[in-house]
Amino acid sequence: MTYCVGMQLDAGLIFMSDTRTNAGVDNISTFRKMFCWQIPGERVITILTAGNLATTQSVISQLEERGKHPSERRPSILKAPSMFQIANIVGETLRDTISRGAMAGAQAESRFDATMILGGQILGMPPRLFLIYPEGNFIEASPDTPFFQSGETKYGRPILVRAYEPGMSFAEAAKLLLVSFDSTLKANLSVGLPFDLQIVPAGECRVGYETRIETNDPYFTEISKGWSEALKQAFKSLPPYVLPG
Amino acid sequence: MTYCVGMQLDAGLIFMSDTRTNAGVDNISTFRKMFCWQIPGERVITILTAGNLATTQSVISQLEERGKHPSERRPSILKAPSMFQIANIVGETLRDTISRGAMAGAQAESRFDATMILGGQILGMPPRLFLIYPEGNFIEASPDTPFFQSGETKYGRPILVRAYEPGMSFAEAAKLLLVSFDSTLKANLSVGLPFDLQIVPAGECRVGYETRIETNDPYFTEISKGWSEALKQAFKSLPPYVLPG
Repeated sequence: MTYCVGMQLDAGLIFMSDTRTNAGVDNISTFRKMFCWQIPGERVITILTAGNLATTQSVISQLEERGKHPSERRPSILKAPSMFQIANIVGETLRDTISRGAMAGAQAESRFDATMILGGQILGMPPRLFLIYPEGNFIEASPDTPFFQSGETKYGRPILVRAYEPGMSFAEAAKLLLVSFDSTLKANLSVGLPFDLQIVPAGECRVGYETRIETNDPYFTEISKGWSEALKQAFKSLPPYVLPG
Repeated sequence: MTYCVGMQLDAGLIFMSDTRTNAGVDNISTFRKMFCWQIPGERVITILTAGNLATTQSVISQLEERGKHPSERRPSILKAPSMFQIANIVGETLRDTISRGAMAGAQAESRFDATMILGGQILGMPPRLFLIYPEGNFIEASPDTPFFQSGETKYGRPILVRAYEPGMSFAEAAKLLLVSFDSTLKANLSVGLPFDLQIVPAGECRVGYETRIETNDPYFTEISKGWSEALKQAFKSLPPYVLPG
């Protein structure tokens, strides 16, 4: 499985993804699920992938036109006039890739589904964030639904729903994402460190900050321990249920 | 969907279940999912059901021998010598019921699966807690895995994992269950109030306390608001992520 979140803030976009892929519990690997293309100052495009790894790698390769010689590659997502067009291109590539795999469906044990979170900004237009379904269609984030999760979404959702605020800083949002990822990690083996974190400040049309949070990252360790403790304290602070008699 | 939890404490057993059933989002009903049989002082047996409602109602009816005239009913679960035997009886009844339904599988849109949490105590033996699968087999709670969830389990799991302690009082455990149910309720439409709560003190072989927490229950409202606030405070108490530059 996987856990990815893309989030829209007043300050811009922030993305986080884990790196664990598994086929069963005894075939675990680390693969990057965050992919980024940019013409700094003109456009920045980030994709987070969840689902069948062969599908998502194939989609990314097609978007990068890896079938061509490096000197001849002109990825269409770098020429599309709007983020909406880019979402269309990614959605179509995803749908076509899945349907090719599905033709062998009777022989394959697993489905070839994949979901993608796409975010970015093109100069002169606001930052945009999309969730792209295996069918190739997509929805866009809005003030009512300002973030998208994919993969193993449930464990980490309660804190996102409660603590998200559009005006929060990137530093606060990174903390929120790490708490949400920590909850998921604690409950589910199929989500694992390291995590990739990326920040895209609104208006800059470039990646502002990018890092990989490794297994022994001291800040994550502090957040993880601190959150456990803070949760226990929060729980203790509530009044107990009053049993009669 | 459904959310049920059965939990083993040093003090005994505590159970909570929601009451929402749905077939799609526009066909929502309220059904009790907590069932109890007792010969006070000799044995107490509680079952929490999750899954296909026709299956679970059929299993409960068979366990109560509703096919017979009331005066002739001698439910075998009230005669079985051990909780393990009772788990066997419930498991077999569940498996047989599902396989009857599955024969019409090609015509039916949904599966007939169901899962049951079974707990109780028979005089002279310790309280025991089981999770019974649709296949009729089951696992038993132990100090390492002292509680079972069924249905929509993921949202409410992180707080259970962190705050559970075997030595907690029933009042603390009821609070913990309500917080876990609140997290689930906030995130998932298919889990809904009212909730049924039951407490079985160790050694008494009877239901010690039972209540239904209704939609406007003032304690639940307080917990729900308080937990949102406490979570936000807990989140704020953590140090922010430090961005370079």
